[in-house]
Amino acid sequence: MPETLPVTLRDVQDAAARIKGVAHRTPVLRSRTLDERVGAQVFVKCENLQRVGAFKFRGAYNAASRLTAEQLAKGIAAYSSGNHAQAVALAARELGTTAVIVMPEDTPRSKLEATAGYGAEIVTYDRYTGDREAIGQALAAERGLTLVPPYEHPHVIAGQGTAALELIEEVGELDALVVPVGGGGLIAGSATAAKGMLPGIRVVGVEPEAGDDTRRSLEAGRRVSIPVPRTIADGQAADIPGELTFSINRCLLDGISLVSDDQIRDAMRFAFERLKTVVEPSGASALAALLAHRIDSLPRRIGIILSGGNISAERFTEILNG
Amino acid sequence: MPETLPVTLRDVQDAAARIKGVAHRTPVLRSRTLDERVGAQVFVKCENLQRVGAFKFRGAYNAASRLTAEQLAKGIAAYSSGNHAQAVALAARELGTTAVIVMPEDTPRSKLEATAGYGAEIVTYDRYTGDREAIGQALAAERGLTLVPPYEHPHVIAGQGTAALELIEEVGELDALVVPVGGGGLIAGSATAAKGMLPGIRVVGVEPEAGDDTRRSLEAGRRVSIPVPRTIADGQAADIPGELTFSINRCLLDGISLVSDDQIRDAMRFAFERLKTVVEPSGASALAALLAHRIDSLPRRIGIILSGGNISAERFTEILNG
Repeated sequence: MPETLPVTLRDVQDAAARIKGVAHRTPVLRSRTLDERVGAQVFVKCENLQRVGAFKFRGAYNAASRLTAEQLAKGIAAYSSGNHAQAVALAARELGTTAVIVMPEDTPRSKLEATAGYGAEIVTYDRYTGDREAIGQALAAERGLTLVPPYEHPHVIAGQGTAALELIEEVGELDALVVPVGGGGLIAGSATAAKGMLPGIRVVGVEPEAGDDTRRSLEAGRRVSIPVPRTIADGQAADIPGELTFSINRCLLDGISLVSDDQIRDAMRFAFERLKTVVEPSGASALAALLAHRIDSLPRRIGIILSGGNISAERFTEILNG
Repeated sequence: MPETLPVTLRDVQDAAARIKGVAHRTPVLRSRTLDERVGAQVFVKCENLQRVGAFKFRGAYNAASRLTAEQLAKGIAAYSSGNHAQAVALAARELGTTAVIVMPEDTPRSKLEATAGYGAEIVTYDRYTGDREAIGQALAAERGLTLVPPYEHPHVIAGQGTAALELIEEVGELDALVVPVGGGGLIAGSATAAKGMLPGIRVVGVEPEAGDDTRRSLEAGRRVSIPVPRTIADGQAADIPGELTFSINRCLLDGISLVSDDQIRDAMRFAFERLKTVVEPSGASALAALLAHRIDSLPRRIGIILSGGNISAERFTEILNG
């Protein structure tokens, strides 16, 4: 592993020390049915059981906890319609400060309420006419807030890597680690931790077929932008990899597998009926890749991350009936 | 705790040694949202994540593993339309023998398939004309099989108690333990373990309002039979407590709380959306009692058991829309 990368195993270990006692050490599930279906031993790291229901809390808390007392006194900010919003809101509350979250007007009410429930102030904008980045930055400048980005920050990436660190600490040697790819923060941190601990491990990312910006970028050797993807995996609907995350991922990833929306649906059903656990579409994509045999020459011991579980019962049913 | 009871803490500890490495040591979930809703610290023991998706495997395996080599060579048998069927089927497979399971003809296909999937032979009968007990006993006599009952056996009860044992080993002192009551095996074993380890603990059972045979029996001081209950909690639709389980429960239980089917629905939704975990109706009743504030003067640290998670995505939706 190149030592010149912007995030190191040491950074992930530091993040693990910071989040200890604040983030959950999530359980690792085993299922013989899954092992039989896949033809390997599979270790399932349940970040759907993380606080706020997704791995995002790890990175948000690690980043926010490193701000100065002065920065924290002024407050933090984020723009997100997804799990990062709740993660920053909760991180702020845990650190005794406040968060302002910029969210599209048409964000599902449950997500607005969950974010407000952690004590954050919500600022909405029209997603068709407004530019969330500009709004977020203007707001931050005006009020002196510090923005916590969803993935383009070394502390965020290091925080996300703690999920893989915990998994390997708990189960030991793994031959491969399979991780969903959205903006690329989770897999960049996971690959940093995994390859630092187990130099021979294969790290495979999973994207929805419609949202294969990272796969295309890895092939091209540079960041490639694609049309905004149409997929049920809303957390993976990125149209271009992050600059920082891609600079890590192009060095550390061994490949990207793609899954269809139907394969994601099957994985959500499998998780529900066999693993008794709830995953949102983006959270199910690594599992989908295994169940649909989308990863070539699978090794013997495989770790995967179920990255999030934020979905209402109604939306879950709608998707399964898709 | 009377020392003359038919199952002791020592029996539960012996069962724990037997099932070690065969049954899962299931995780204990925490949720601040749950703690806030309940006004206490709640420790959730996830038996929905046990092998076969329910606590039943603990007791079935403990009982079957104590049979003689000769008994095991001939095979084991059970009658059940529910989780006990799969539990006995898997216990047989783990012990290198075969199981014959007597099930109603109209058992949902998914349950028939799951049971057959563990290698069991299924014998069906017409639930309106046949007597499953008579069929099971005739079959056992004819083929020399040993019947493993769902709750009326000390080894089964001791096995079920290992869930509470693990919970208390992991989280330490608890003021109360809240457990679903069907035939009474899970709570009899749980109360034996809990009161043996923590003499001051309060053990509360939860029954569906329509199926309050144990509550009535405790009030009457003797086993009372009720009309077959109509409730979504099919695993708790017992019409009379077991003789053996009741002999333990009348000595050890501190009370029974009742929950409505709607309260169970709410708890299933809460488990899905907030705990990201799948519970069947019977498996959700202890959680329902907490969320609906059906337990008086709640103490500070409470353990509950989510006892099972075997439900299809379709049936789950149907129940939530019920």
